[in-house]
Parts: sequence; structure tokens; C-alpha cells
Amino acid sequence: MPGSSWGHMFRISTFGESHGGAVGVVVDGCPAGLELSEADIQPELDRRKPGQSHITTPRKEEDQIHILSGVFEGRTTGTPILMLAHNKDARSQDYHHLLSLYRPSHADFTYEKKYGVRDWRGSGRASARETLARVAAGAVAQKYLRERHGITFLSYVQQVGSILADIPLGSVTMEQVESNIVRCPSSSDAQKMISLIEEVKADGDSIGGVVRGEIRGVPVGLGDPVFDKLPADLAKAMLSINAVKGFEIGSGFAGVALRGSEHNDPFGADETGQIRPITNHAGGTLGGISTGELIHFRVAFKPVATIGKRQHTADKAGVMVELEASGRHDPCVVPRAVPIVDAMAALVIMDHLLRHQATR
Amino acid sequence: MPGSSWGHMFRISTFGESHGGAVGVVVDGCPAGLELSEADIQPELDRRKPGQSHITTPRKEEDQIHILSGVFEGRTTGTPILMLAHNKDARSQDYHHLLSLYRPSHADFTYEKKYGVRDWRGSGRASARETLARVAAGAVAQKYLRERHGITFLSYVQQVGSILADIPLGSVTMEQVESNIVRCPSSSDAQKMISLIEEVKADGDSIGGVVRGEIRGVPVGLGDPVFDKLPADLAKAMLSINAVKGFEIGSGFAGVALRGSEHNDPFGADETGQIRPITNHAGGTLGGISTGELIHFRVAFKPVATIGKRQHTADKAGVMVELEASGRHDPCVVPRAVPIVDAMAALVIMDHLLRHQATR
Amino acid sequence: MPGSSWGHMFRISTFGESHGGAVGVVVDGCPAGLELSEADIQPELDRRKPGQSHITTPRKEEDQIHILSGVFEGRTTGTPILMLAHNKDARSQDYHHLLSLYRPSHADFTYEKKYGVRDWRGSGRASARETLARVAAGAVAQKYLRERHGITFLSYVQQVGSILADIPLGSVTMEQVESNIVRCPSSSDAQKMISLIEEVKADGDSIGGVVRGEIRGVPVGLGDPVFDKLPADLAKAMLSINAVKGFEIGSGFAGVALRGSEHNDPFGADETGQIRPITNHAGGTLGGISTGELIHFRVAFKPVATIGKRQHTADKAGVMVELEASGRHDPCVVPRAVPIVDAMAALVIMDHLLRHQATR
Amino acid sequence: MPGSSWGHMFRISTFGESHGGAVGVVVDGCPAGLELSEADIQPELDRRKPGQSHITTPRKEEDQIHILSGVFEGRTTGTPILMLAHNKDARSQDYHHLLSLYRPSHADFTYEKKYGVRDWRGSGRASARETLARVAAGAVAQKYLRERHGITFLSYVQQVGSILADIPLGSVTMEQVESNIVRCPSSSDAQKMISLIEEVKADGDSIGGVVRGEIRGVPVGLGDPVFDKLPADLAKAMLSINAVKGFEIGSGFAGVALRGSEHNDPFGADETGQIRPITNHAGGTLGGISTGELIHFRVAFKPVATIGKRQHTADKAGVMVELEASGRHDPCVVPRAVPIVDAMAALVIMDHLLRHQATR
Repeated sequence: MPGSSWGHMFRISTFGESHGGAVGVVVDGCPAGLELSEADIQPELDRRKPGQSHITTPRKEEDQIHILSGVFEGRTTGTPILMLAHNKDARSQDYHHLLSLYRPSHADFTYEKKYGVRDWRGSGRASARETLARVAAGAVAQKYLRERHGITFLSYVQQVGSILADIPLGSVTMEQVESNIVRCPSSSDAQKMISLIEEVKADGDSIGGVVRGEIRGVPVGLGDPVFDKLPADLAKAMLSINAVKGFEIGSGFAGVALRGSEHNDPFGADETGQIRPITNHAGGTLGGISTGELIHFRVAFKPVATIGKRQHTADKAGVMVELEASGRHDPCVVPRAVPIVDAMAALVIMDHLLRHQATR
Repeated sequence: MPGSSWGHMFRISTFGESHGGAVGVVVDGCPAGLELSEADIQPELDRRKPGQSHITTPRKEEDQIHILSGVFEGRTTGTPILMLAHNKDARSQDYHHLLSLYRPSHADFTYEKKYGVRDWRGSGRASARETLARVAAGAVAQKYLRERHGITFLSYVQQVGSILADIPLGSVTMEQVESNIVRCPSSSDAQKMISLIEEVKADGDSIGGVVRGEIRGVPVGLGDPVFDKLPADLAKAMLSINAVKGFEIGSGFAGVALRGSEHNDPFGADETGQIRPITNHAGGTLGGISTGELIHFRVAFKPVATIGKRQHTADKAGVMVELEASGRHDPCVVPRAVPIVDAMAALVIMDHLLRHQATR
Repeated sequence: MPGSSWGHMFRISTFGESHGGAVGVVVDGCPAGLELSEADIQPELDRRKPGQSHITTPRKEEDQIHILSGVFEGRTTGTPILMLAHNKDARSQDYHHLLSLYRPSHADFTYEKKYGVRDWRGSGRASARETLARVAAGAVAQKYLRERHGITFLSYVQQVGSILADIPLGSVTMEQVESNIVRCPSSSDAQKMISLIEEVKADGDSIGGVVRGEIRGVPVGLGDPVFDKLPADLAKAMLSINAVKGFEIGSGFAGVALRGSEHNDPFGADETGQIRPITNHAGGTLGGISTGELIHFRVAFKPVATIGKRQHTADKAGVMVELEASGRHDPCVVPRAVPIVDAMAALVIMDHLLRHQATR
Repeated sequence: MPGSSWGHMFRISTFGESHGGAVGVVVDGCPAGLELSEADIQPELDRRKPGQSHITTPRKEEDQIHILSGVFEGRTTGTPILMLAHNKDARSQDYHHLLSLYRPSHADFTYEKKYGVRDWRGSGRASARETLARVAAGAVAQKYLRERHGITFLSYVQQVGSILADIPLGSVTMEQVESNIVRCPSSSDAQKMISLIEEVKADGDSIGGVVRGEIRGVPVGLGDPVFDKLPADLAKAMLSINAVKGFEIGSGFAGVALRGSEHNDPFGADETGQIRPITNHAGGTLGGISTGELIHFRVAFKPVATIGKRQHTADKAGVMVELEASGRHDPCVVPRAVPIVDAMAALVIMDHLLRHQATR
């Protein structure tokens, strides 16, 4: 099985590298009858695109999305939807000097060893530009889930470097997330994060961060034991994003130090008399199946590997060389990663929703 | 897609619940010619089985494995291998009083909502007994990978509650792991962990922990961009294990606070002249593909939900009731989780190895 | 992808060879709440089992089916159902003389070349005994489809050698099929077929035949363009059965000679005012999707390769040898193939029904 | 699972309808390092394209293929290859009058019932134009298999209506196939076929035909028991092509009338001393696995449903109406189907070759 597909019933296949003809995705399995046009997709892509603020890479990529199949008279037909964005601003020459070496912590080395050949222009398929396709497909899933099932996705930056914002779960609005360029809904923390990123950028360096994801309105019952548990598929979805090094759901790593009597979520009747968990250390699933409560998780992004600062590394002949990047990199990837986390979460939920419906 | 299968080229399908007839697995895709008998499987099952020490559940399950197909004259034939263990010591009556309520932080609630019916005996399919099948399948993969490719798996307990052992990566032996009942290779830390678990057990409570996994000898080139990255599949594999709430690879969540200039792994020539990463914050993969370095990751287990201590929860009618478990639970799951982590890691690597060979 | 699994949403994984410990199947994805016991499965196995009449092989295999998981208090739980039959009457020594040669038109040669090793006892995994697992899984699907959707499967022998029975489509009952040992619902033709098989058997020879399959009550809308068309999946299902060499649906090969104006099925309103095809050359699908009409198809079985008659073939050293079988073979496979065709058809429809429901 | 993907290790996902923006395919899993450009693909598309002779539809479709990803410096990189052709000559108004009715033997009815909506322009996704994507993907597979493994595909028209050409297996060259517009390598039969098609066309009618496929050079060992037998996957591949109603391999339906003693293929040593089957009634596989002999099969195509002749059918209100097509149809589909059969056969073999290599 090659690795560029995701999902079973809502199945996407992505293609494209940073300096080829186009980047895009085929979405197969979208239910028929959903109103859909480029205008539904573009806003999510714009949240992801480079050059959107002074704390992101200055590269300009328009990321104009085109739908070439699967939509007729404004609605999906149930057949595959092709969406693509042509590549522009492709300054391949910026990368030519990298041909003879492996950049530290980039995929140059592993792609070359695995495939024998390597597209050295802008990281090729390993480029973060590939995530454009995920965001486009995720926007279709998000629209369907919101309109038909009232399920919404809201991720935001919770941490940059060591600055951790204190944000109560379930309280945030999209307006708050979009109210600042770092996408942290706590404006005081956002200011600190922006200052830190500016400082790091001035150093020609980069810094990591954490995106917290929230999924609201998921009905009880999604997720498939025993391997395709909802947290398992969310974990895979998140770790498949470039630069991600960790995932935790609910209490996560911190829960390790708790006792069962503290960590357990007892059941009780809510104001409507419905039985549900009273607390939510679980993070919205039990036994891998959604409980109907808020699903919340955290995703750790390492500092971007491309830095302006001078580094030493070996070239292919083993000679130590100095490497200085051209400077068109993101000092911190998390502000642009927010829509990618939303998209991947939506692809997970969409697939499991259709799978669940199959056996109803 | 139902969820009880794992892998594409080395594909396993598990079955069985804690109090049914048997628990087991069909392994399809094992290369022909591998020497295999029950004696290769049983030791891994014995590391997982209940009742192995005073800090695990006193339940006695023999977990005697039987191979019923796919092996002829002591070797695999390339056709499906069925392995199963019959269920014994099934004191279903221990669970009958649970019929009318949902235990806190158990899957009773979600299974009943998802399927309409629920096997209330010992958690049914959501029982940790299901992991027996993973360990059996993983033992086949481990044997193949060790004998044919020199790849080995070595997990151990790194943390119980807040006791975090300081263990240098790549230094540990299986003898050290098995030298104490908590499976922590640092004997001083192991003593503290055992004391903590004894204390928690005396309280009728439970406590979480962290298993660190190491995979040695993986060649460069395994893993499939962009969704089936090696860390993504490892993350899914680990989050599919009961009670797991978090996964991180390499620098993980701690790496977030680092700068790119600190975190990057430069390349250099080793003593044999081979180019490789000099440091390994990445944890053994770049761009989702193995680098040939040690793969290391951490898995967070929450405290076990079944506790002896009195708890309050609602029954199905919404009436608050008191719940006290019979006491046959694990106060801490991580000592028995170690072989499960090894097994799941082996299933991931085995599948990717075969996939990689396909395109050679 | 190894090849012992079928289906996406109703997914089965079979295992077992003729002289190993057991033959069986894991069924994953069966909806919860279906009443199920061994008594629902056994009758279909009895239609398939050897030794049921004097025109089948005299081998005695009890094929007693056991359900070991996935059923609780008489109903499916939505989790994997393991069904198996232990192997008996395994006279392995009957096959020992075959060790050094490749039987004509058997899979000995290809298994040995593919896998390097070969289970020479009774054809190993290539044995028709493997179809037992399909029939068991198909019986579960048939029960679900009949009880929940009124869909029924009825196959019968339409041809043995050159004797072709003239049987109007949609007219046959299960009683008629089971009224004679050859399973041809036309009793006059059945007599001729039985005589032919007796004659062939007396010769120590074998003969081919055709099974016609009918599926009744399939609603409009099942089947997935463009590769997973219903006829495509039926074709694969049938060609996956041992000894099958051809498949046709609707007008099939004979339709080639017709003109479009003769072959086309115009639409009209039926007595209830519903629009439907007036004729059914299509065989119940258009564009790969069911029309709601009778689905009918034909499956060609070659003469059984094992014959009593003396044959010449080369041994592994290339020396021509004489080969005479022990005589425990079927002179004609089609009477026992009827339940296998029903089972495979049911697996196809079941999977597509669940897939269709997913997007509702 | 939606249905627009084929293959496991060489996996294609097609998209596009006859009057949308484009038709195309993503090929994932093509080994890296294969020289590839549009010039390798276009000739196969030209064999398929409409308007190539007076016996095909006069519609003009250029079918100009573009490769937009996965190829760098003239070689495949191991990442997904996107190929597409933009739609032109799309006279949608030709179809507008069909909006209120279901054409006989077209998929209008079933698509509308399945999806609720229908793209009525030129059959939408059910259009034969979809096969363009298969041919493009198949051309990649054919190039790889030919260059790396010496495997070649050669299909031709064996029958039109009742005219059956007598063509010895394994004797035909591509030059002979391409020597006439009907693609029958027997020139005398080809003349008769062309005359028949001209006559049928003059009548405003259509006629069916048979394509025989040959695959040469397949090594012993491809195919996966028990469900993914090579003949099973070939059958599915062929039945997934528009208008196909039947498939047979080797002796096929005719083999039914033979006795085992006639049908069996004994083994013998060839001139090089290699043991192989002396005859090939099997058609190149045993037990679903290739024997190393010629693989040969036959595919039945029904007469094209679109005819110029007046027909009666019901509109959606149930009123009988007269229907006369605009005349831009193929009177016989088989000459253009030849490259499609080659393409699908190549996709089957390519996938199984990679799967086989995985376990080496």
C-alpha cells in the first residue's frame, strides 16, 4: 500500500510536490447532494497559506483551488471530486545548492535512500505544501459534518516555546482564534507568543509549539474497536503532519501521575436526565468510541528544521560544510498548522461517521 | 471497514472477548519458510499474562496458545496462521451486578450505545484480554524481523506515577528489563516503582505509567509518505492499546521548547565513513521514513479504570449508586503492557518492511 | 495485501488447509443484534460437505461448525465472529506418494514455486475444503439479508457436461433445487445429469458444469462505480472459487451476437406505476449498480483435476511417471458448488449493502 | 469504500465525468526511477480515443494527457503521479432532452436512484470517457512491466456479432493488431467484421463483440490465494469495464463439456529441462497463481446501448416516449476496447508483481 491515501469510506488520495505542476487531492466517497464550490474551500486554504503575516514565511503562494470533477450544478454527485492548485512562485534555483548535501532534520536523506532519486526542489513531496491537499479535502468534510450533523472543529495555538496559554476547554470561538496572527485565543498569551516568534525570527532561528484541537458535537458511537479506535486514528492523522512529534488525548501524559480514583469519569444524569460522563479526563472517547462529550487533544510540533542561522552538516562525500538558508522559512509553524489540524480531525470523524452509518 | 484488522501486507485480524470461547488472531501475509511453533509465541504471552507477580491482577489466565493453520513441518507455508487461546477462569458472575450500570471510564457505555447490545461479562471485546492476540501476532513478526533482518524490539517501564527513571537510550538489555517485576531496567527506580504500586494497591486504587519503546536495527527507508509515515503508524498502533492516552517520538512534547538550531540533527560521517545523523532528536525517522538510527518513543498509560476503592456513578436509570470492584484488577498496567508495546511496534515495522520490499 | 480476506465493510478472513488443525473464518463487521447460532450455519455446510450422495466424493468430513466469539446471549455483538471446523478423516498418507511430483492441473506446482515450501497433504490451502469457510461466512450474510432486507439467493446446476437444462429465470424454489442430488431443479434434466456423472465416475474420470445464480430482492442502488461495480465484484467472487473458469451476467457471451435494438431494456411503468426496466438482458444491474430486478449470472466449472484414470506427468526430476488417484474425488463438482456460489454472492451483496448505507 | 480506486500496492484513483473539467488518475505506488513522459502515455490513449476511424463514434476528443506530479527530470520519484486530460468538444446541449427520461440500458436510472442527483451530460461518470484514466494508468504499468520484467500485453478483437476469427494463441503481433481499424489480427475476418459494423451503423444500430487478451512473460508465482487469485482479479478488472457482460480464462465455458482426462494439463520437461505444463487449458494459472505460461482470456462486450434507431421507453412520469439518439455513438465498442483490456490486465499484473516482491 502506498501512503498517499487516507480513509476507508471517505477516501482521499493526494498528489503533488512543491515545485511540480500542481498539488491536489481526489476525494472519493463524499455523499451526493452537498452544496459545494471553490468558495467553500478557499478560506481554509487561506488560513494555511504562506505569507499571511510577518511571523510566517514570506513565500507567496496563492493556493487558488480548482474543482475539476464531482460537482454538478453546485452539488456533489457522489463521484470523485478532484481539487488542485497549480504551483507558482517556484524559485527552484533557491534549492540547487542543496543538491549535494542533506539538510539537517529534513527528509532529503531518507527520500534519497528510499527512492534512489530525490526531487531536490523545495523538499519535493516532503514539502509542507503537500498539506494544502489535506486542508482542501478537510474543508469538504467539515462542511458536510457541520451542515448535516452539527459537528465543528476548532483548533488553536496553546503553546509556543515554553509559553503555555491557559485556555478553558470548550470556551473558545473561531473569532477569538482568528483575532490574532498566532491563532492563540488568549490575547495576552498571543502577544507573548508573537514577541517570542519575532525574537526567534530575528535570530534566524525557529521554535516549536503545541496546537490544541477541539471537536464539538460528535455523537456517541463513532470509532471502531480494536485497532481503529477514534484516538488511534486521530493520533495517526496528527503524526502524519510534517513536524509533529507527539499527540495526547484527554489527560494525556499528565494523566500518568494521577490515581484511578482521581482520573475516573463517573456517570451521572445531566439536566435533561440523560446519562453521560460528569467529567471528561478521557477526552471524549471510551474504549475508542466517542462518548458524545467534547473531544480534545494536543499536538506537539518541533521547531522548523529550515533556519537562517549558520549550521554545519556533512555533504554527500562526508565533508563538513556550512549551510545557511535563504531565509524564506517559517520561524514557527503552529499558526499555519491550525487549519491542518482541523482538516485532519475532520477527515477522521467523517470517515468514522460514514462507517458507523453503514451498520445502522 | 470494521476495526479488528491491522496492516496491509502483514495483515492480522483478531477476535474474541474475555468470556467467550477463545481469543486469537489470523495472521495473513507471513512469508513462507519461517520456523515457527507455539514455543516461539508462548514466552511473549507469559510476559503479558495476568497473575505473574503480586503487583498484577491475581486473575489466573493460562493463555495457552495453539497454532491451528499455516504451519507445516515446523515452517510457515505463506498461508494464514490461526493462533488462539481458549478462555478459562471466566467468573462471569463477578460481573453480573454491573449489568445495570456503566462503570466509570470503562467502555460499557459506548459499546452499548454503539451496538445496542453489550457483552457485560468482563468488558467483552473491550477487555485487555484482547491484547493477547496482538502479542501472539507480534511474536511472529518479531521472530521474522530478528532472524532475517536483525531488527529487535525492547520496551520497558520508564515511569510509574511521578517516578521517572533516567535510562540512557540504547543501553538497555532484555535481561535488565526482565530482572524485576515492574520491568524497569534501572533497579533503584524499579524498587521505588514497586513500592508505589504496592501502596496504591493497598489503597484499592490504581496509577498510570509510561512505557518507552526502542527499536534497534531498522534499516533506512521504511515508512510511506505522506499519511503512512512510520511515526504515524506507530502512534496509531500505540493509541489502539487499551488505556493509552499519549504518544511521542524522539524529542516529543519536550522538543516544543527547543530552537531549531538546538533540535536539528546535523549529518556527519561515522567511523566507517557512512553518512548519518550525528544526533537523534528525531527519534529515528525523517519525513516519516526511518533513518537507520535507533527509533525511540514513549507511550502514556492512564491509571486503570477498575479500582477496589468505593466510587459513585449513575446506573442506567440515572440513580447514583455505589460501586466497589471485586479486587481482581491491576493496580498499574505498565509492567504487563511492555510486551504489548513491543508487539504493536513489531507489527508496524513488519508491515512497512514488506511494503518497502515490494518496490525494490 | 495477502489474499485471504474478502469485503470492506463486511469483512471476512479465512484460514486453514485440508490437513491442518482447523478450517474457518473471522467475520468482522456483522451488524449487532442478529440472532445467530451454529444451527443457522450448519445446514449450508451440509449442502457443501463431501460424502452427501453417491455422485460426490466418498470422503467423510463432518464439518461441524463452532462459533467461538462475537455472539452473546444468542445475538451478534458487532464484534468479530470466529467460526471454525476441526479437521478429521485426514488420511495424509494418501497423499505422501505425491510429494515428488506435480499433479496435472493442480496447484502443487504453483504453490511450491511461489512459497518455496508446499503442504502436500490433500492440496493444503488450495484444497476445496477451504470453501467451507466461505459457506459459513456466507450463511451469516444470507441470514442478515433475508431477515432484514428480504434478499434471497438461489443457485442451481444448469449444466453438466453438454446437458443444459432449460429453466425459466425467477421460477425456481429451494425445494426444487434440493429435490435431487445434482441440484438441478428440472427433474428430467437432473436424471440425465446424474446418469452422465455416474458414467463419468465409472470411467474414473470427471466432468464440468455450470451453476446459475439468482439473487432476488436486491434493492436499486447497490454497487460502486467505477471499479467496484456489482458485476465486477460478483465476477471476482465467482472466479475466486476453485475450478471456476468463467462468469457471465445477464445476456453474457450470447449477448455479443445481438444488436443494440434487440438487447436494450426499455423502461416502462409496472402495474403499481413504478418505473423499471421492462426486460432484463442486463441481468439486474446498469452501470454496475443494481436496478432492483432479478440479478442472474452463470458460473463455469471445469472438470475436477483429480481423476481415478491413469495419467502421465513428469515428476520433479523431469521423469515421466504414471499417476493414479486413490479414488476419493468428486466426479463432478457442481452439485456441491451450489451453496458456495450462494455464499459468495451473499458476501458481495452484504458488503455493498453496508457500503450503500454508509452514505445514506 | 468508494469504488474509484484499483490495486493495493500499485494503486490508482480515477476521477472525472464526460462533461466536467477533466478526466484523470492518480497513480500511487509506481516504483521510483522509471523513465516516464507524456509520450509514453499518449499512444495508448490514441488507440482508445473516439473519432479514430469511420467505424467509431465521430465525436472528437483530443485526450491530450498531462503529467502534473510524480515525475522529476524525466523519471518517476516514487510519489503519486497525477495525469489528466481536460474535457473538450463537450456538447452538453446534445443531452439536455434526456433530462426527463432514462435511456434504455444506460446507467441514468441507477445513478439517479443511488445518488439522488444525476449529471445528465453525456452519462456523467458512467461515460466510457472514464476509461481514458484507466488507459493512462495502464500505460505506466505496461511500460514498467515491459522494461523491467519483459511482460507484455496484447489484446485484439476475436469476435464481432457472430463472426469469430480463428487465431492461434501466442502467434499475434502488435503490428497485426494495428493493421486494420477493427483490431482483429486476421485480416480476412477483419474485413468481414468491418462490413458487419458498417451495416449495423447504417441501420443506426449497434453490435457486440469479444476481445481476447493475452499476457506474455508473466513469471511463475503471481496471484494470491484464496480470494485474490489472478483469474479473480482479471475477471473483476474486465467486468469493471463499461458494457462487459462476461469473462472466461483458459478453456472457459467450453471447458465445461470436457472430461478431466481431456482437460488436465500434464507436466513435462521442456527442451531446456525445465518442468512446466505441456498443455495450457488452464490459461496460465493454477490455484490462482501464474504458471509462467501464456495467460489468455476472453471478454464479452454487449452491443452499445446508445443507438440511432428509434426506441420506445418511459419518461420519469411513466409516459411512453420515442427516443432517437443524435448519432454520435460507436456502432461497436470492441475496436476501441482493446487498449482498455490491455490497461486493466496490466494494472492487475503490476499490482500482483509488487505484492509478490514484498514477501521475497
